Amino acid sequence: MTRTVTLLTDFGLADEFVGVLEGVIARIAPDARVIHVSHGIAPQDVLQGATVLANALPYLPVGVHVAVVDPGVGSERRAVVVACADGRLLVGPDNGLLLPAAERVGGIAQAWAIADAALFLQPVSATFHGRDVFVPVAARLALGLPPEDVGPEIEQASLVRPAIAPPVVDGGVLSATIVAIDRFGNAALAAGGSHLDAAGIGVGDRLEAICGDARVYVVRARTFAEVRRGDLVAFEDSAGSIGLAMNHGSFADVVGARAGDRVALRPA
Amino acid sequence: MTRTVTLLTDFGLADEFVGVLEGVIARIAPDARVIHVSHGIAPQDVLQGATVLANALPYLPVGVHVAVVDPGVGSERRAVVVACADGRLLVGPDNGLLLPAAERVGGIAQAWAIADAALFLQPVSATFHGRDVFVPVAARLALGLPPEDVGPEIEQASLVRPAIAPPVVDGGVLSATIVAIDRFGNAALAAGGSHLDAAGIGVGDRLEAICGDARVYVVRARTFAEVRRGDLVAFEDSAGSIGLAMNHGSFADVVGARAGDRVALRPA
Amino acid sequence: MTRTVTLLTDFGLADEFVGVLEGVIARIAPDARVIHVSHGIAPQDVLQGATVLANALPYLPVGVHVAVVDPGVGSERRAVVVACADGRLLVGPDNGLLLPAAERVGGIAQAWAIADAALFLQPVSATFHGRDVFVPVAARLALGLPPEDVGPEIEQASLVRPAIAPPVVDGGVLSATIVAIDRFGNAALAAGGSHLDAAGIGVGDRLEAICGDARVYVVRARTFAEVRRGDLVAFEDSAGSIGLAMNHGSFADVVGARAGDRVALRPA
Repeated sequence: MTRTVTLLTDFGLADEFVGVLEGVIARIAPDARVIHVSHGIAPQDVLQGATVLANALPYLPVGVHVAVVDPGVGSERRAVVVACADGRLLVGPDNGLLLPAAERVGGIAQAWAIADAALFLQPVSATFHGRDVFVPVAARLALGLPPEDVGPEIEQASLVRPAIAPPVVDGGVLSATIVAIDRFGNAALAAGGSHLDAAGIGVGDRLEAICGDARVYVVRARTFAEVRRGDLVAFEDSAGSIGLAMNHGSFADVVGARAGDRVALRPA
Repeated sequence: MTRTVTLLTDFGLADEFVGVLEGVIARIAPDARVIHVSHGIAPQDVLQGATVLANALPYLPVGVHVAVVDPGVGSERRAVVVACADGRLLVGPDNGLLLPAAERVGGIAQAWAIADAALFLQPVSATFHGRDVFVPVAARLALGLPPEDVGPEIEQASLVRPAIAPPVVDGGVLSATIVAIDRFGNAALAAGGSHLDAAGIGVGDRLEAICGDARVYVVRARTFAEVRRGDLVAFEDSAGSIGLAMNHGSFADVVGARAGDRVALRPA
Repeated sequence: MTRTVTLLTDFGLADEFVGVLEGVIARIAPDARVIHVSHGIAPQDVLQGATVLANALPYLPVGVHVAVVDPGVGSERRAVVVACADGRLLVGPDNGLLLPAAERVGGIAQAWAIADAALFLQPVSATFHGRDVFVPVAARLALGLPPEDVGPEIEQASLVRPAIAPPVVDGGVLSATIVAIDRFGNAALAAGGSHLDAAGIGVGDRLEAICGDARVYVVRARTFAEVRRGDLVAFEDSAGSIGLAMNHGSFADVVGARAGDRVALRPA
């Protein structure tokens, strides 16, 4: 049976790029269902792409999952297929984009470098490997091509890891990195509710958040509906991460927060 | 036969949310076709969401129609399934979002509160009921689950109605509420061509529109192609509402109009 | 076998328009696969729409391809079906939108004016011919309706051509028109790598680009990964056109370039 192919890119929806990806899949594997996870990753923001893919993957049908956020396209970065412990195949550049997702579904079983040019659309363009390399390979995997046929197996330890500084709790202060800002202006941290607990911040407690020049008061709650309009709130979001939000407003706008920023949280 | 599931939300396309919704449907009801009506409703704008859903519904295949614009998620607002007279099932929060659409296809036949937690993804998050409640229920309805199995039937009269002030014609002046601004900057009113007739404004007539501080001259026409570039026009739009537009421009930008604003129209 | 229907419009994704198009197709031709090429064409930008469609078409399954960028809706412009040499059917307004795409797949075989009102959704609105005319016709073509049944055959020479000034190489200077700006701020020219060669600009050469008031230095390279961050680069893009880009930045923002602008390129 043909497997589902999911797509995540930073291509946006203004141009032909996303339609072309689905078209190439439909020509090679007409029966493959295509699910668009997101094409709104900020251009070349590998960290955001990795976060969004990791949050989505457990909810997608087991299939072939293509991700292309690829500032190194045209350079010597590797193209890879990563088999996850649960049978999923991830396809994309070897730049850290795929690994957090693999860890969310049981970790990596095996990995291969994409090398067999007979699988590509020819001629391969210098800038659109999504169309010419990743999606043709993914469509053939969806049809049943064994992943070992794409190229040589590679050491898992050689895969590039994403550059996310781990959360630190020290002296009652939790420091963590913003990995994504969503459309509501909510900031997601690379840290979970247990890190707030470790910093001595319980549900219902007031805390101070420091991000760059901004110092704001925040309430830890179950959801932003529990605070008043305009109040800031820290909560465990739907992906299990700490979310920082403003009820009926944008935390990111008010605080000037951006993906990659470090935030310090401590009891107020 | 598995029914079509349509989705309308204010989630935007930057994050994983929409891909996750389709993924959850594909895991529960792999044969259900998914149609994305819109995910570009302004955040928490129930009025715009209700308008867009009502405009779309008659053109969609009869199926299960999920709408999530849900500022009250995590509070005590009810989650409901509404059966329409023509066999459609609407699924969403009980906040007025669903009712104008039901009225467009013959009205409500029956309604139920969603209560059976065995239908949900567990654990249910505090903030993403689209993923954990609405879509799992909708996917099971698409597979044939009888709607009375989601929870207790509720009185139609108890459903929350949307807060749209009705149009008023008084002393030759039509007052009506803007329910949506589209991407071209056209404003749609909660009023139709017959209300213009009642205010004494016929096709081809010149009228004055007053919206906040702005007073502008507008021509009633069949379409904006009938006026010159830069001219303002009132016309019956493709959903049967009064549209206010600028040929080759944005009515909303020029007038400073926003959804929810009240507009007065009178013969010039 | 029902054919694939692809959709390209300037409708955006905020409103119900795109969901309605897919809904109308699903009601008429439930087995037709729908591929969304793009709905992010700038409003009424026929030139950008024609470019995006032409770039995508060779990668889409052979099917029925609807394009609606239609500033003349409601006026007397014709609606047409264009059969391409490779069997594709293009459906849209006769305003130049379809022709560059047809040329990319072998040229036009035949063309017809859409005239049989029995194929339309009734009543036909004055402003939404995508819903009422183009998509109902396309869905019936996907089901096997012979294209000659939509209306009278028309002369190919009578089809409206897009207004793209051809590239000119004169005195070592290449002048060409920007036909599209993509989401990364890359500008695509209506000219290819051979035109740079003809102006004496080889791969690796430095050139000067003049666009309006802006004069900037650019390097011709295979891809923007070959230059440093912030450097400007001219390269053959994935559609075979000259792309002007900034590595990790936006060429269009830096230079103030817009679709339709004329650019002069000469060796530096």
